[in-house]
Amino acid sequence: MSCHPDRERPLDGDIDPQEMVSSRKNTVFVDGVILNGPTTDARAGEKFVEEACRLIMEEVVLKATDINEKVCEWRPPEQLKQLLDLELRDTGEPHQRLLELCQDVIRYSVKTNHPRFFNQLYAGLDYYSLVARFMTEALNPSVYTYEVSPVFLLVEEAVLKKMIEFIGWKEGDGIFNPGGSVSNMYAMNLARYKYCPDIKEKGLSGLPRLILFTSAECHYSMKKAASFLGIGTENACFVETDGRGKMIPEELERQVWQAKKEGAAPFLVCATSGTTVLGAFDPLDEIADICERHGLWLHVDASWGGSALMSRKHRKLLHGIHRADSVAWNPHKMLMAGIQCCAFLVKDKSDLLKKCYSAKASYLFQQDKFYDVSYDTGDKSIQCSRRPDAFKFWMTWKALGTLGLEEKVNRALALSRYLVEEIKKREGFKLLMEPEYANVCFWYIPPSLREMEEGPEFWAKLHLVEDINCMMPRL
Amino acid sequence: MSCHPDRERPLDGDIDPQEMVSSRKNTVFVDGVILNGPTTDARAGEKFVEEACRLIMEEVVLKATDINEKVCEWRPPEQLKQLLDLELRDTGEPHQRLLELCQDVIRYSVKTNHPRFFNQLYAGLDYYSLVARFMTEALNPSVYTYEVSPVFLLVEEAVLKKMIEFIGWKEGDGIFNPGGSVSNMYAMNLARYKYCPDIKEKGLSGLPRLILFTSAECHYSMKKAASFLGIGTENACFVETDGRGKMIPEELERQVWQAKKEGAAPFLVCATSGTTVLGAFDPLDEIADICERHGLWLHVDASWGGSALMSRKHRKLLHGIHRADSVAWNPHKMLMAGIQCCAFLVKDKSDLLKKCYSAKASYLFQQDKFYDVSYDTGDKSIQCSRRPDAFKFWMTWKALGTLGLEEKVNRALALSRYLVEEIKKREGFKLLMEPEYANVCFWYIPPSLREMEEGPEFWAKLHLVEDINCMMPRL
Repeated sequence: MSCHPDRERPLDGDIDPQEMVSSRKNTVFVDGVILNGPTTDARAGEKFVEEACRLIMEEVVLKATDINEKVCEWRPPEQLKQLLDLELRDTGEPHQRLLELCQDVIRYSVKTNHPRFFNQLYAGLDYYSLVARFMTEALNPSVYTYEVSPVFLLVEEAVLKKMIEFIGWKEGDGIFNPGGSVSNMYAMNLARYKYCPDIKEKGLSGLPRLILFTSAECHYSMKKAASFLGIGTENACFVETDGRGKMIPEELERQVWQAKKEGAAPFLVCATSGTTVLGAFDPLDEIADICERHGLWLHVDASWGGSALMSRKHRKLLHGIHRADSVAWNPHKMLMAGIQCCAFLVKDKSDLLKKCYSAKASYLFQQDKFYDVSYDTGDKSIQCSRRPDAFKFWMTWKALGTLGLEEKVNRALALSRYLVEEIKKREGFKLLMEPEYANVCFWYIPPSLREMEEGPEFWAKLHLVEDINCMMPRL
Repeated sequence: MSCHPDRERPLDGDIDPQEMVSSRKNTVFVDGVILNGPTTDARAGEKFVEEACRLIMEEVVLKATDINEKVCEWRPPEQLKQLLDLELRDTGEPHQRLLELCQDVIRYSVKTNHPRFFNQLYAGLDYYSLVARFMTEALNPSVYTYEVSPVFLLVEEAVLKKMIEFIGWKEGDGIFNPGGSVSNMYAMNLARYKYCPDIKEKGLSGLPRLILFTSAECHYSMKKAASFLGIGTENACFVETDGRGKMIPEELERQVWQAKKEGAAPFLVCATSGTTVLGAFDPLDEIADICERHGLWLHVDASWGGSALMSRKHRKLLHGIHRADSVAWNPHKMLMAGIQCCAFLVKDKSDLLKKCYSAKASYLFQQDKFYDVSYDTGDKSIQCSRRPDAFKFWMTWKALGTLGLEEKVNRALALSRYLVEEIKKREGFKLLMEPEYANVCFWYIPPSLREMEEGPEFWAKLHLVEDINCMMPRL
C-alpha cells in the first residue's frame, strides 16, 4: 500500500488538491487508483433516483389506498427465489434493469399500507411520517451528538417532553430505540442499575438471584430481555392473569413474597398496557401499590396500548401510569409513525439513564465542546449510530395536532367496536371476548363444524383449521 | 366504551360494511365517531408527498454533490430552538406550513452526503441504497416472518450468504441489526451461550465470573455490552496495544492465564479489524491461535474494517478472519449503504443463533404454516419488528457489482494515502502515524506553536486548541 506519486503520475509532477478536483487533464494515480474527479456519474444517479421515486409514488403510495389492488402477489419461498434475480455478481446492472428489479420487489412485497392488510401493529399509511422518513433517508443522520444532528436532537427532546406530559409526569427523560423489545431491555437494565449500581462494573456473578415479574400475557421480549441481560428466563416470573388477560395483583404480591422467601431479590415489575393478542390492560394502580410496598421498579410496556393516552375518552385504560418509573410506548403502531418509532421514557430526572448507560467514549463525547454537551444524548443509548425516529412522529403530530391524533385513536377503537357487533351478527363467526382495546379476537367456524357441540373434538378440529384471528383496525 | 349503534345511527338501522365503505349518505356512528369513509384526504396527502419529494430532491439530493453549498447552517442549541417551531400543539398545520418546516429541518441539518463533510463513518451519497431506502419506507415492512416480508427475507439471506463467502467461511448464519454495537452484543451473548447454554434460563447469578478480552483501542460498545449483558465492565479485560494500536497477542495470552489463575472463566476474545480512531487491525491469525489453545470464542468487530474484504488488494488486512467464530460488519460505513446496515455473522450452522435467541412466541412463529418456517428468521433476533436493512446493501451491490464495491474500497484507501502525502508536505500539519487503513490522524499546529519544542508545554497548549483530527475519505 505504499505510495509512489512520482512514478505513477504520468502527466504531472506535483498537483495541488484544488487542481486535482477541478482538472481532469492531469491524472493522479495513487496505489493504482485514478483519484481525479468523482467516480460516480451524479447526473445519471440523480436521474435514477427521480425515476425510482416516480415508481415508488405510483406503485406504492398511490396504490396504497386502492382497494382493488392486491395486498400481496404471494409466492412460496422457492418459487419467489426463481422469480427474483437475487444473486450478487461481479459486475453491476444498468439502471433500466435496476428499475425492473425495484418493480419486482414491490410486486412481491406485502403492501402493509393496503386498506385490507390486517396484521400486527399496522394501521395504514400516514403521509406525514412518510415524508419525514424520506427526508431522514436523504439526509442520513446519526443521532449521537448535537454537532452532527442538531435538528433531530432538538426534535427528539421536544417529542419526549410531550410524551412525558401525556404519561402524566411533571418531568422525565427518555430515548428512542429500535423497537419496543429494546425499550423493555432498557427498562430491565435501568431497574437493575437502580437496585444495585455496582452491577454495571461488577456484573451479576456472585450476586443473589435477581427476579422480575410480568404477566403471563406479556410480550415475548420479556423472555428475550431476561436471557440477553444475563438474568435468565427462569428468573422472569409470569404472573397469572384473569379471564380478560389482565395481571392479577394478588397473584403478583403472592409471588413477590414467595421469591423473597426463597432468597431471591425482586427488583422489577413489568406491567403491560395493551397485550399483544388480547389487548388487555394490567391494573396499574393496584400494581403500583404493590411496587411501592416492596420497593420495586414499575415498568409499563405500553408499546401497543400507549397510544390510548392521546384520547381523553380512552386514556383511562392506563389509569395509574403516572406512577410508573418507566414506560415503553411505540408511536409506530396505532399512531402510524412508520417502523420503527419507539420511545423509552423514564420518570427519573437525576440523570439515572445516562449514569447507567454511559461509556464516555472520548473520541465522540468530548466534554470541552463549544456548545452545551448535555445535548449529546448518544451516551444514554446502547447504540452508537442511531436513527432519528422521533422526527417522523413529530411531523405527524405537527400535521394532525393532538386533536388529530386523538381522533385516530377514537376511530380505531370505534372501528373495533363496530367489527365486534358485525361478528356477533354473522353466522360462522365466534367472538373470543368483548375487547377493551383495538384487538378483536375471534374464530371463523367452517360450515362443517357449525353444528358440532363445543367439546374437545370441536376445538381439536378448529385448531387444525386456524389459530385465533386477531384483527386490528385500519385508519 | 359501550356501543349504541341504534341510538347513534340517525339515518339508517343496519348497514352492510361494504355499503359503509362505499356510501357516504348513510352515516355510521359508533362511540361518537363517524365511521363512514376514510378520515384522510388521500389526494391531498399524495400531493403533499409529491411536493415534499421535489423539495428533498432539490435541497438534499441535488445539492449533495455541490461543493458550493454549505455542509450545515450551524446554530447553537438555544438559538436553533428559537429558529425552529418545535412545539407540538392541539391543532395541525396546513401543508404549506409543513413544507416550510421541512425546508427549515433541511437547512439546519448537517448534510452528511456533502463532499466536504468528513466525519465518523460517512463516505458520501450512494444513489442506489437511497432508492432502496425510499422503497422500504414506502412499503414499511417488518422482517420477522416470511408471510409479512417475503422479498426482504430472501434478500437478507442472499446478502448474508455473500458476506459469509467474503469472510471465507464455507457456510454460516447471521442477522442484520440496528448497529455494530448491537452486533457486538449479539456476539457476547452467543459466545456465553456456547460456553454455558444454561445461562439462557438460569442467568449469571451463582456462576463463576465470566471474563472477556478485547483491545485497549476497541470500540466503546464493548464496555456497553459487558454492562448491559450483566457481565460487568470490570470483566472486560482491555489488552494492551502496540504503537500502531494493534492488540499484542502475548499480552492477550498473559491476561487469559492471569484470569484463569484468579478463578475467573474466560469465554471470549473480541478482536478489532479497523479501530475507531487509528483504523488499526488486530493480528487475527495469532489471536485465533490463542483462542484455539484456550477454547475461547473469537469475535471480530470488523464494523469499520470489514469493507476491506471486498478488495483483493486490501483484504490481507483481515488475514485470518475465516478463523473467527463471529464477525460484525457494517456496510453502512465505507460501502455507503445508509444508516443502519449492520450484519452479525456466525460461522456455526447448527442453529446456535436461533437456539440462543428464540423465545418461540406462539402468536407470531407458528410452526404449522403453509410454507417452510425456517424462513421466519425473526426469532433469531432480540428485536420483534425489524427493518429490512440488508435490502439497501443488496441494491448497491446489484448496481455496482463486486468489482464496483472493490473500486470504492481501493479508492478510499488511495485517497487516504494521497492525504497523508499532502499532510507531510504542508507546514503546520503533523501526521500522527502512517495509516494502514482509511483513517488519517493528524494535528494542525497553529502558527503560535510551530516554533515551540515538542515538550509537555507544547502538548498541553495543543490539546487546548484541538483533539486529534481523524479524517475519513469521501467517495
